[in-house]
Amino acid sequence: MALDAVLSRIDTDLSAATDRLIELLRIPSISTDPAFKDKCQDAADWLVADLRSMGIEAEKRPTPGHPMVVGHVEGDGPHILFYGHYDVQPVDPLNLWDRDPFDPALEDTAAGKVIRGRGSSDDKGQLMTFVEACRAWKAVNGSLPCRITFFFEGEEESGSPSLVPFMKENAKELKADLALICDTGLFGEETPAIITMLRGLLGEELTITGPAKDLHSGMFGGIAMNPIRVLAKIIASLHDATGRVTVPGFYDGVPELSPEILDQWKNLGFDPAQFLGPVGLSDPAGEEAYTPLEMIWSRPTCEVNGIWGGYNGDGFKTVLPSKASAKISFRLVGQQDPLKIRENFRAYVKSMLPPDCEVEFKGHGASPAGQMETGDPAFEAARRALSDEWPRPAAYVGCGGSIPIAGYFKSILGMDAMLIGFGKDDDQIHSPNEKYDLNSFHKGIRSWARVLDAITKA
Amino acid sequence: MALDAVLSRIDTDLSAATDRLIELLRIPSISTDPAFKDKCQDAADWLVADLRSMGIEAEKRPTPGHPMVVGHVEGDGPHILFYGHYDVQPVDPLNLWDRDPFDPALEDTAAGKVIRGRGSSDDKGQLMTFVEACRAWKAVNGSLPCRITFFFEGEEESGSPSLVPFMKENAKELKADLALICDTGLFGEETPAIITMLRGLLGEELTITGPAKDLHSGMFGGIAMNPIRVLAKIIASLHDATGRVTVPGFYDGVPELSPEILDQWKNLGFDPAQFLGPVGLSDPAGEEAYTPLEMIWSRPTCEVNGIWGGYNGDGFKTVLPSKASAKISFRLVGQQDPLKIRENFRAYVKSMLPPDCEVEFKGHGASPAGQMETGDPAFEAARRALSDEWPRPAAYVGCGGSIPIAGYFKSILGMDAMLIGFGKDDDQIHSPNEKYDLNSFHKGIRSWARVLDAITKA
Repeated sequence: MALDAVLSRIDTDLSAATDRLIELLRIPSISTDPAFKDKCQDAADWLVADLRSMGIEAEKRPTPGHPMVVGHVEGDGPHILFYGHYDVQPVDPLNLWDRDPFDPALEDTAAGKVIRGRGSSDDKGQLMTFVEACRAWKAVNGSLPCRITFFFEGEEESGSPSLVPFMKENAKELKADLALICDTGLFGEETPAIITMLRGLLGEELTITGPAKDLHSGMFGGIAMNPIRVLAKIIASLHDATGRVTVPGFYDGVPELSPEILDQWKNLGFDPAQFLGPVGLSDPAGEEAYTPLEMIWSRPTCEVNGIWGGYNGDGFKTVLPSKASAKISFRLVGQQDPLKIRENFRAYVKSMLPPDCEVEFKGHGASPAGQMETGDPAFEAARRALSDEWPRPAAYVGCGGSIPIAGYFKSILGMDAMLIGFGKDDDQIHSPNEKYDLNSFHKGIRSWARVLDAITKA
Repeated sequence: MALDAVLSRIDTDLSAATDRLIELLRIPSISTDPAFKDKCQDAADWLVADLRSMGIEAEKRPTPGHPMVVGHVEGDGPHILFYGHYDVQPVDPLNLWDRDPFDPALEDTAAGKVIRGRGSSDDKGQLMTFVEACRAWKAVNGSLPCRITFFFEGEEESGSPSLVPFMKENAKELKADLALICDTGLFGEETPAIITMLRGLLGEELTITGPAKDLHSGMFGGIAMNPIRVLAKIIASLHDATGRVTVPGFYDGVPELSPEILDQWKNLGFDPAQFLGPVGLSDPAGEEAYTPLEMIWSRPTCEVNGIWGGYNGDGFKTVLPSKASAKISFRLVGQQDPLKIRENFRAYVKSMLPPDCEVEFKGHGASPAGQMETGDPAFEAARRALSDEWPRPAAYVGCGGSIPIAGYFKSILGMDAMLIGFGKDDDQIHSPNEKYDLNSFHKGIRSWARVLDAITKA
């Protein structure tokens, strides 16, 4: 069977694959620092050369910033686009690294072998899991299992300024049936995950004005409306006693999870105490009626990200301030309509204003949630393929934050994305001593071979 | 009748009295600015000389700051202490003055004659109303109507750092039966007022800590407790729907007003729209069950003077902050016990904390309310005397803020204070173009003659 031969090839080639990754890791492609501009070119060149060495038509494509790398392989079956990024985070503070971040090496640790170095996990190591899977497949079968477009970015760690324009300009070339993205993690140690829900985000800033100027509380205290009190009351009213958001119509378009997904999540063995403990918390503080995983993955939220008004310096000032402000954000799920929620939120706040109060709003972004079409047989095929590789079955999971690239693939190229990754929570990405487990690398490569096989047959 | 002769004398001497005040106003005794240290000495010397010219034993008394002026006149009847301050506020911004602030003059205005210059109202003009009343009395009767101690401070506009130590060191000398203080205003244009209630002040700062560090709302939003929400809920809970403060035991020791006082206040014709209009408000926002004047004079309050937490810069940051803080103050009345209220407030806040939250408190001052013993016949005598002088009857009023000197007279010297003044809301004290109505000065002098007469006979 072709797949078994590919997996064997991956096993025997692991040492060489590791050497290749280490070569790529040696290139300090820090995208945010102009001093490393040439190194980003070098990393792109390395990838072009590596793809070409496998007979893939690849080239470096200029942008106003760092170049993209785009490669194409023709083939039968579905057209897959694979995305990863070759740029890395800065390495400060350098003195906290146990080795030169750009002199990577395989290290033995108590928890097993790791590849240590900047970018080992985020994202060069992850990117190379897919490339190595393709290399093994090609070596065994002489060709790849389907049509594949490789798309590597060099600005992911510095805000991706060129990404959207490049995707728009090259939409026809990049459009595929499905995107695969390798920039996320396992769930825990042994459970692979496919992110199929990404929460959207609506940002609102509001300023309540009461008195026309700051007043002295000796003279006006007791008779003048205090905008901090008004703001506090509004914020306190945004959730009911069970933790539900009270903005009218807020839950329109919020789906309940299917029994299958609920079951998958139940089997993940998520321990909220273990999740919250490291940040000094113990109690899941969201909607009473939902499980902790739903709170962070599939339920919408309303949070206050900032509040200010009156005097906050040393000592005391008996001021009744003229204004009080807050920044409030909503994480959105399913089919929630950000603009409708903005409208409802503003009307709701206005309805709570006492006499003599005015409110001004400022919008800060409004992006809907991403919800992948898991009904597409490719998803279920990939999930089974991952389950075959790892000790525990794979799950469709949510992501509480936004991963912009997935949204762009949907909105610009009209394709769903499958976010599969092998990073671990302790990989220390963006921090000193970044590492990638050799196990993540090895089983990651094997995972992609299985997923490609499964998707092609699905 | 002796009083009538004194009042006549005041009328005929008004021009000379105005000249004397203008002489004192020429001395730029700005206490907060070290460049004017000598000028403060000059003002004190001028007052010593003026008191001595009336045969009053007076001297300049050194302090670590600017000197006090203390004078004594022996006599029969009650022992009165009169307090005023000879220092003035800085004059910046100078370009907004229509004349040199220290080249004072009598000016004709559409509203009548005014004495223009820094300190004309606050407090040299007011201080001299009492001195001139004494001068006229002495000129007519050869002596003053009772035993009087004169006590002039030179640091009132710069925090009175020497006041309490000086009062403690000289308590025996300064202790009298009653203090008279001339540093406040009329109620409106035509109604004299005796302040008999001064609200106390309790300041509290609280910081709610939730997560041990700032969190990302993408990862933790929905499951992590947000301390801004907790703080908002606590603040929103501090008042009920009718505006009453909900801290347990808060109203212990809060007196209801006597029918007499309520009647006096009703007759003041206070117009909340006129009071609130200039600061952009229209609706008295205090306890529903009380009148607007009660809200600012005789009812206790709870106000938020500052709030902060999370991100308040430009743009947006999806942070779930670790901490949120507020500064909260309570204006106190009657017999409310500040320390008991502090204790109850802290316990109340703690009782509202959800799991995983901690609170830290910092106290910022705790002073009880001042409530004068208006049962003392001197108060009623003074009120009638003032009513005889002015178009409308005098009232016992409250003062929403604290006037520290009145508290010190009570706590250090054990005597009540009668706060009577003739300033007007448009005097522009602390601002450019400060003025004192000639009418305030003239009728102020006449008022003190009447009050001295009445108190002596009471």
